[in-house]
Amino acid sequence: MSKALDLWPDRKAIRQQEKTFTYREFGERVARLARALLAKGVVQGKAISIIAPNVHEFLEAYYACAALGAVLNPINFRLSAREAAFIINDSEAVLLLAHTDFKDTVAGALDDSPLIKGVVWMGQAKRPELEVPAFDYEGLLAAESPEMPPLPDLRSNDLAHLYYTSGTTGRPKGVMLTQGNVTFHALAAIAELKLADRDTWIHVAPLFHLADAWATFALTWVGGAHVLTPYFEPGLVLEAFDKEKITITNLIPTMLNLMVNHPKVGDYDYSSLRAILSGGAPIAPETVRRIVEAFGCDYIQTYGMTETSPYLTVSILKNHLKDLEPQKQLEIVSRTGRAFIGVELKVVRPDGSAIAADNQEVGEIIVKGPIVTPGYWNRPQATEEALRDGWLYTGDLAVIDREGYVNIVDRAKDMIVTGGENVYSTEVEYVLYEHPDVLECAVIGVPDETWGEAVKAVIVTRPDGKPDENEIIEFVKQRLARFKAPKSIDFVREIPKTGSGKLYKKALKDKYWQGKKRRIG
Amino acid sequence: MSKALDLWPDRKAIRQQEKTFTYREFGERVARLARALLAKGVVQGKAISIIAPNVHEFLEAYYACAALGAVLNPINFRLSAREAAFIINDSEAVLLLAHTDFKDTVAGALDDSPLIKGVVWMGQAKRPELEVPAFDYEGLLAAESPEMPPLPDLRSNDLAHLYYTSGTTGRPKGVMLTQGNVTFHALAAIAELKLADRDTWIHVAPLFHLADAWATFALTWVGGAHVLTPYFEPGLVLEAFDKEKITITNLIPTMLNLMVNHPKVGDYDYSSLRAILSGGAPIAPETVRRIVEAFGCDYIQTYGMTETSPYLTVSILKNHLKDLEPQKQLEIVSRTGRAFIGVELKVVRPDGSAIAADNQEVGEIIVKGPIVTPGYWNRPQATEEALRDGWLYTGDLAVIDREGYVNIVDRAKDMIVTGGENVYSTEVEYVLYEHPDVLECAVIGVPDETWGEAVKAVIVTRPDGKPDENEIIEFVKQRLARFKAPKSIDFVREIPKTGSGKLYKKALKDKYWQGKKRRIG
Repeated sequence: MSKALDLWPDRKAIRQQEKTFTYREFGERVARLARALLAKGVVQGKAISIIAPNVHEFLEAYYACAALGAVLNPINFRLSAREAAFIINDSEAVLLLAHTDFKDTVAGALDDSPLIKGVVWMGQAKRPELEVPAFDYEGLLAAESPEMPPLPDLRSNDLAHLYYTSGTTGRPKGVMLTQGNVTFHALAAIAELKLADRDTWIHVAPLFHLADAWATFALTWVGGAHVLTPYFEPGLVLEAFDKEKITITNLIPTMLNLMVNHPKVGDYDYSSLRAILSGGAPIAPETVRRIVEAFGCDYIQTYGMTETSPYLTVSILKNHLKDLEPQKQLEIVSRTGRAFIGVELKVVRPDGSAIAADNQEVGEIIVKGPIVTPGYWNRPQATEEALRDGWLYTGDLAVIDREGYVNIVDRAKDMIVTGGENVYSTEVEYVLYEHPDVLECAVIGVPDETWGEAVKAVIVTRPDGKPDENEIIEFVKQRLARFKAPKSIDFVREIPKTGSGKLYKKALKDKYWQGKKRRIG
Repeated sequence: MSKALDLWPDRKAIRQQEKTFTYREFGERVARLARALLAKGVVQGKAISIIAPNVHEFLEAYYACAALGAVLNPINFRLSAREAAFIINDSEAVLLLAHTDFKDTVAGALDDSPLIKGVVWMGQAKRPELEVPAFDYEGLLAAESPEMPPLPDLRSNDLAHLYYTSGTTGRPKGVMLTQGNVTFHALAAIAELKLADRDTWIHVAPLFHLADAWATFALTWVGGAHVLTPYFEPGLVLEAFDKEKITITNLIPTMLNLMVNHPKVGDYDYSSLRAILSGGAPIAPETVRRIVEAFGCDYIQTYGMTETSPYLTVSILKNHLKDLEPQKQLEIVSRTGRAFIGVELKVVRPDGSAIAADNQEVGEIIVKGPIVTPGYWNRPQATEEALRDGWLYTGDLAVIDREGYVNIVDRAKDMIVTGGENVYSTEVEYVLYEHPDVLECAVIGVPDETWGEAVKAVIVTRPDGKPDENEIIEFVKQRLARFKAPKSIDFVREIPKTGSGKLYKKALKDKYWQGKKRRIG
């Protein structure tokens, strides 16, 4: 932040619709917010929560907390009031920054959040009556000096952020990220993605999630610019790519899918774009080809976790592979990727030994490095389970090739064991996506008297597709071993997703597993 | 290192004349060396010294120490035996890796190095008889397994290197660089210079100095390649630029000067070169223009110190300045540079307040950040003087412009820069004072066409002494590195002094510098 202020003060760095701030102006707003928070008791080490869409105030909150050594706890705005209250209480936040778009969630959550001493409102909608004192965001800023308060003595191990992930246990856990985690990741991302002051990033994926939030720090550090889209709308993002001369961004696969299929995708100039990142789900080389064709830029598959700040791998093409034929190159950049800089990554057998780099043997990804969380907030047991001997066990199953590119075949808990055979759900999903009628799908294991588990596909068909169960099962059988083909298909209108846009298979599975104990996973 | 082994095992990464090693082969040599060192008692935390030109064994030593958590102490091969012995003893090194090119220095130094338990010889020349056990480098490697020994648990604060700088007190001080210093600097350099696996670096500047040594870690981390030139020869470096497809390197200004003026400079293809870095002395825009013209690549001025791993600034052109006319751009890249990523840099008045960013007011550069040394080895007082409130006081005086580019105008202390080497005047004066005929003396830098500055001694002889220029110069050469010896001596009746009785060097220097601009920085 201070580097951007020192070296790029006049860059029009923050743009949101008709609003524009230079780094100097942005820095002054951050300073005012920091002072306002300080006046409300948000001292070093204290946490505040925020519920907001992708607005510039979100970036300001990230930096004001950094300036104070306070802890920011971003909350998924799609959560229910009860879920939000749980997180607010668990994080021990003393203040809530809230956008009026989520006033009902906020009002409901505050009924059960005894530690919150006040709410700071942004947004234009009518504000609900609350029992705690409420303040106006702009009013608070206007009353403060634009000079940055003195920076506390921050150490690498000091807590910077608390992001909550829904664990499979149902109780969200607060992932602790330290100043050291966040700083190292930002620098590593600058190094890997060659970020510089020529870059303009568009924040499309929600800022409450690290998949986009990491870019806040990395882009600012090098004097890059930020464009904010409060909510995702494919047509508007396509237009912004052109109008705002976006050079690089990260998009959730579902977003990318909607954008390349958008009727106006061909109407804009994307020549400023140099790379699109995506991750969180496997991607087919054919899909990558369409993205690269539509936008004329590089595609980089990423893989990460909130616990790792987040990136663990990127599918950046090594220099000596650039001589390969285009199809081979597409296959490589469609893989999960090779280790991110600063990340020690191994794919191991249950006994801890490394699997063969033959693209066949499957093992669990374990990682180590300065980007790994020290653990879960007030959850020593969960921390101990995840971090063993300094290694984070990701629970992701993958193969690795001779060049060091890993490819995730499944979550350990999503792997299906049917009749003694292992079926990796993503492998089956991959084939289903080749079927012309399939828009979205999830493959899960369901209880079965004979096989222990049976493979089931849950599918959303394209508007013009026809839901023919037998035909689709036959389609898979022609392409994979028969035991991997679904035994049954459920056609649905929507597949539930997590805050970061990943398929939420647990919700699907719960329906079938109620009252039954799963033997594995 | 492990990342290069995992991801670029087959890259022909280390090239020295007819020798080539892939990263796999290089990694095996490092593993063998690490095991051999371990067998000789070089455990975590122990130091070893090395005296060698730019040979691949030097890179191997850097990495073997990293693999063991041992401390590498590189020694300037131009030092006298007496100076080398002082450093070896002060560093508490237990083993010396030595190249036979410096067998006389080594043999001499070992007479006064009681802690050294053995010498490992590289190089082909005849090896001198020594009192300590001597080993053959290749012999040791051949006897060991090529598997990396288990990496110790390294922490960020653990010592990695000890580089000695001649302090103004005349007694060299060991600059401690930690694992954290070195790692952060490497990542920062990758980010700033966009280093990647497409890059090939040529090690021309000596590897015993950080100006080149930092590249060892940065290039390897991204899978880049290293070309080694044991000694500088301008024609051979020009040829290597072409033949080895060098993409980036750092050269000492004197080297660059000899290269652009070389008769064969126009004979080679430099299209692979993307940037040349240099520093340690100010450079004229006209000189930069000639460099850019000769090599058709970017020029980046750098400024750093051993105490800061080393880079503090780079003159990389900001994106929005690329629209300026070429001459303006040349002027900017000829400046000392803007703060390196991760470096907090201020130019301050004696009261600690920041100077005006008007390119006029002069202040001292002070810096902070993860690349700053924790201090001098066993020199708490010197550490306390250099590091105050977490800021390193560089002793360099500079102006700063509105864009944040600093330009060094003078050194607070009277250091002489001759042919890229730093000579501290007091160190030479101390030796002169040992001469029986010298009553009083002052050592200053005077303008010199070839060396930038030449070392000159101004001497008042004892009444009974005889002013013999050659004899006194020879006296110094026997006690110090040859480059530190005066090139000429002025015999005077009196040396001007300040009111408090200190030597008033400015008055002496003014005589020689009238009408010339001092080329220091």
